[in-house]
Amino acid sequence: MSVVEYLESKANTLRLHSLRATTKAKSGHPTSCLSCAEIMATLFFKEMSIDPRNIDYIDNDEFILSKGHAAPILYAALAEIGIVSREKILTLREFSSELEGHPVPRVEGIRVATGSLGHGLSIGLGMAYAKRLRNIERRVYVLLGDGEMAEGSVWESINLGGKLRLSNLTAILDMNSLGQTGPTMFQWDSNAYASRVRAFDWNVFICDGHDISELIKVFSEAKRSDKPSFIIAKTVKGKGVSFLENAEGRHGMALSEDELGKAEREILPKVKEMDFQPANLIKAMRRVRDGRNRFSTKTSYKLGEMLATREAYGRALVKLGELNENMIVLDGDVKNSTFTTFFFEKFPRRSLQCYIAEQNMIGTAIGLQKQGFDVFLSSFACFLTRAFDQIRMASYSRANLKIAGSHAGVSIGADGPSQMGLEDLAMFRSLINGIVLYPCDAVSSEKLTCLMANLEGISYIRTTRSRTPIIYGNDEGFHAGGSKVLRQSKSDEVTILAAGVTVHEALKAYDELKEGGVDARVIDCYSIKPLDERTLKKAFEETKRVVTVEDHYAEGGLGEAVASLGLKPYILAVRRMPHSGEPEELLAEQGIDTDGIVNNVKKIL
Amino acid sequence: MSVVEYLESKANTLRLHSLRATTKAKSGHPTSCLSCAEIMATLFFKEMSIDPRNIDYIDNDEFILSKGHAAPILYAALAEIGIVSREKILTLREFSSELEGHPVPRVEGIRVATGSLGHGLSIGLGMAYAKRLRNIERRVYVLLGDGEMAEGSVWESINLGGKLRLSNLTAILDMNSLGQTGPTMFQWDSNAYASRVRAFDWNVFICDGHDISELIKVFSEAKRSDKPSFIIAKTVKGKGVSFLENAEGRHGMALSEDELGKAEREILPKVKEMDFQPANLIKAMRRVRDGRNRFSTKTSYKLGEMLATREAYGRALVKLGELNENMIVLDGDVKNSTFTTFFFEKFPRRSLQCYIAEQNMIGTAIGLQKQGFDVFLSSFACFLTRAFDQIRMASYSRANLKIAGSHAGVSIGADGPSQMGLEDLAMFRSLINGIVLYPCDAVSSEKLTCLMANLEGISYIRTTRSRTPIIYGNDEGFHAGGSKVLRQSKSDEVTILAAGVTVHEALKAYDELKEGGVDARVIDCYSIKPLDERTLKKAFEETKRVVTVEDHYAEGGLGEAVASLGLKPYILAVRRMPHSGEPEELLAEQGIDTDGIVNNVKKIL
Repeated sequence: MSVVEYLESKANTLRLHSLRATTKAKSGHPTSCLSCAEIMATLFFKEMSIDPRNIDYIDNDEFILSKGHAAPILYAALAEIGIVSREKILTLREFSSELEGHPVPRVEGIRVATGSLGHGLSIGLGMAYAKRLRNIERRVYVLLGDGEMAEGSVWESINLGGKLRLSNLTAILDMNSLGQTGPTMFQWDSNAYASRVRAFDWNVFICDGHDISELIKVFSEAKRSDKPSFIIAKTVKGKGVSFLENAEGRHGMALSEDELGKAEREILPKVKEMDFQPANLIKAMRRVRDGRNRFSTKTSYKLGEMLATREAYGRALVKLGELNENMIVLDGDVKNSTFTTFFFEKFPRRSLQCYIAEQNMIGTAIGLQKQGFDVFLSSFACFLTRAFDQIRMASYSRANLKIAGSHAGVSIGADGPSQMGLEDLAMFRSLINGIVLYPCDAVSSEKLTCLMANLEGISYIRTTRSRTPIIYGNDEGFHAGGSKVLRQSKSDEVTILAAGVTVHEALKAYDELKEGGVDARVIDCYSIKPLDERTLKKAFEETKRVVTVEDHYAEGGLGEAVASLGLKPYILAVRRMPHSGEPEELLAEQGIDTDGIVNNVKKIL
Repeated sequence: MSVVEYLESKANTLRLHSLRATTKAKSGHPTSCLSCAEIMATLFFKEMSIDPRNIDYIDNDEFILSKGHAAPILYAALAEIGIVSREKILTLREFSSELEGHPVPRVEGIRVATGSLGHGLSIGLGMAYAKRLRNIERRVYVLLGDGEMAEGSVWESINLGGKLRLSNLTAILDMNSLGQTGPTMFQWDSNAYASRVRAFDWNVFICDGHDISELIKVFSEAKRSDKPSFIIAKTVKGKGVSFLENAEGRHGMALSEDELGKAEREILPKVKEMDFQPANLIKAMRRVRDGRNRFSTKTSYKLGEMLATREAYGRALVKLGELNENMIVLDGDVKNSTFTTFFFEKFPRRSLQCYIAEQNMIGTAIGLQKQGFDVFLSSFACFLTRAFDQIRMASYSRANLKIAGSHAGVSIGADGPSQMGLEDLAMFRSLINGIVLYPCDAVSSEKLTCLMANLEGISYIRTTRSRTPIIYGNDEGFHAGGSKVLRQSKSDEVTILAAGVTVHEALKAYDELKEGGVDARVIDCYSIKPLDERTLKKAFEETKRVVTVEDHYAEGGLGEAVASLGLKPYILAVRRMPHSGEPEELLAEQGIDTDGIVNNVKKIL
């Protein structure tokens, strides 16, 4: 038996698994699996150097299924290399199964979640770059569908991948010409894709995606390429089952039992029992770096000193970089604004410029992190909304990312609303494993940044453009789920909850109220998620009235988080259309400055 | 005086305005303005056919400043054609000025907000397509910076623009080689851009961006192109001021008074007083279609009939399409899932396939709407997160969009979390002029869709994958800020607030509770923003206890919206990591099904 015969048989085995699993599940995307069966077989049983017993080690080749709806065939491949059982793949999409409708890292061999199209190549870029940084001579393979080639995020990764000359990155395009609701933009015009991708400095190869010999040949050529490789595989959706081949209207539809029977009768004859030693298995040696981080840093600020929390963040990154050689920092051409520039200057080989392409930056970060790096990335808080889908999917990837969003709120001033982060707390709070931190001074900013280095999940720190006074001593400690009671007395009539820039407004309001005979409790809610429920509830019980004040829209931020605890806060937030102006004017207009707080407290009492 | 001399003088006038305005404002991006002065002068005083007295009419040429931080030079151009006064441009960035740090449509001649990079070409695509639909032989010009060429959204629009062969769309790239923090990816390698853009089927022209004759020539060639045109203008950041030309570290920095003086001395000699009749002024005749919509449609469903709200939405679109010939519907290759397919089949010439590229779809929608079309667009709710930045900016553009997000919640079932909308209510609630609607049955779905046709701002309707029973009669009315009290009595001990799929769970819970001797009020909060505050507060006063239940994460959705009213709700929502399974199993796991509601009510009482 030749290699080609072996792989053809494996391809049809993968077809059978995919069809059986989706029919049993009564849902799924079998025709999308059928078009890439030869590609998957060639990758998993010939091309990729993998150690199935240690598939998560980082000196394996990597595979990412960017066309995540073809999950069944990925599970089938994992079964055929012995990572999951053949029985298990029939639990596809069941409530208790790790084999979900689209891939999630609940199964060995799957590092990231895919299923929202256009994400895989960014992640692959990050992994390929990681291997290069670690001098691991392994490759990263990303299988894309042609529908997702319309996603801009794919072109961001093609662009950066070409620029970085990531020769260990190979993309394969399953060009089956059919999207979900009709033909793709370019159908089988391989030259349309080829000319576009070549222009971005990749080597492009075109082949018949169902011809194993051709696939073997192009994979071999790709390996010799000094640029990233893009293999355009001409395929047929539904290939291998006569009544499905190139049929419109069959996207995302499982076969009935009858149809499955017919399909099996066509495919089974092509599946051969055989004795064949796979030549692509290796012994992997390098685990993903494990273990919790326990970094701690010191600050040495003076009370009253003025420094922006964004700058303190930048300084903290450098301190962490000195402690942690596994740390990488990403930027999207705003490093002098976010202050990641300090790290870029100090540790250029651990800094990656992703240019103005936030979607790809997030995907790259995920890929790097899954290869064992500790990744910090930042942009303006508002520009992180550009990558909400990628951040959402990072959550399902169980990724560990440390994200900073600067230029929070109307208090950035004259640049105006296009640059103002006013919804970022809502966005990051919505992540199921999100931690949201919002320091008000440089001490807490540095310490919370360091805390992020030790956290799991997706942690977000919101930083401020303007300089704010240091209010904490260098010995203060900060933790997720914590808060700082800054002013309190037994006769407090109201509690003011603030974070970031509004903490300083609240402290000034405290003074004014005190002069007027009103005692207020002031609490710095630097941990927005999780909130310090105990302290806040206690304050509510004792003072009976709560005011929250945030430089953020009213929806989904500090105020609503506090409200969800049942504390009935009076929520001061940005409620009017934002626009340019001086920071003080804008805060005042929104009623979230000192006067705004004082007036509202008086109204309540 | 020749045309070239005239335009050179105008270019330097624009330089002076930009420098003076930013120095006075003590902030802004003068060097980014200086690099495009000749481009702007040639466009506004020679190339573009415009009627300054009726600049918002749609038979003008259009200009979009995608590199929005160069706002000062746009304002300068508008001043020089008489739309704003020369004094006004010195109010740049002031609190009371419409001339904000980045363009917003508060000034005639500016239709959309820019400032988040990579948005302008999508919007321009929409405008160009609109003019084609209306047979208006005018052009759309979009000025981009080279930093933003890294944004995937730009490539989405280049891709679709090429495919649609929008020959009336001209992009100009201000290739000054410097981004914010350093050189761009390709600096002055015009061929790097040219080869990439040509591959997407645009005609590409390269010229010296400071040579007026060359600019005139390429604009003329572009006009004759049968494809969209991409003009690569080689420029120098800071051009025209010797100490700024190509200087690093000067991005986003206004000149000091001293520096301004020096700059003026260099530029003033190049500004000539002249008598010159601009030849590019026209008389525009066609207003943007104005006036509120007042469409109404009828439904004819039977109580108990089963239909998915997403399908009812699709039917409503067709009814609206029959009433409104100005209506356009956009899709991102999911029309058979969102049910916009009905409209696509019925009105193909008013339907636009945007393929799997949500960012560009939003931008295109904005462009179409600003040319007077009524635009509906949809995707899976979760995929709209791909375009959060564009939706955010649509808000600042004061755009009027009707957006539908389908496949809400865990109740989509087996596809798993990559396809589940669980944060979309938070996202759309965060828009300052957002309206968020969430129907539970086909009647309300159709009627709310029709309501959206008549609303201003950005309205969002959340639809469900599964079929749900009709519970409303065809005579029922629905309005923004409304709700429906479905069950109530004088002895209600608790209020259950639900929306969408959980309304049906709540009704079943009502029956169970009643059997157990507990009376509950059940309210369908189909209007999530704005909430029906009066009805909800009344219910709280009368029943004392409120439970909210939503198929959405706990943050930023119905529960927190209700909490922000001070009603201290017990919030049932998706709190556990979502995964595949049957809809019923998943709802139960999250405690948002009938049992979950019953158990929680019992716990509270």
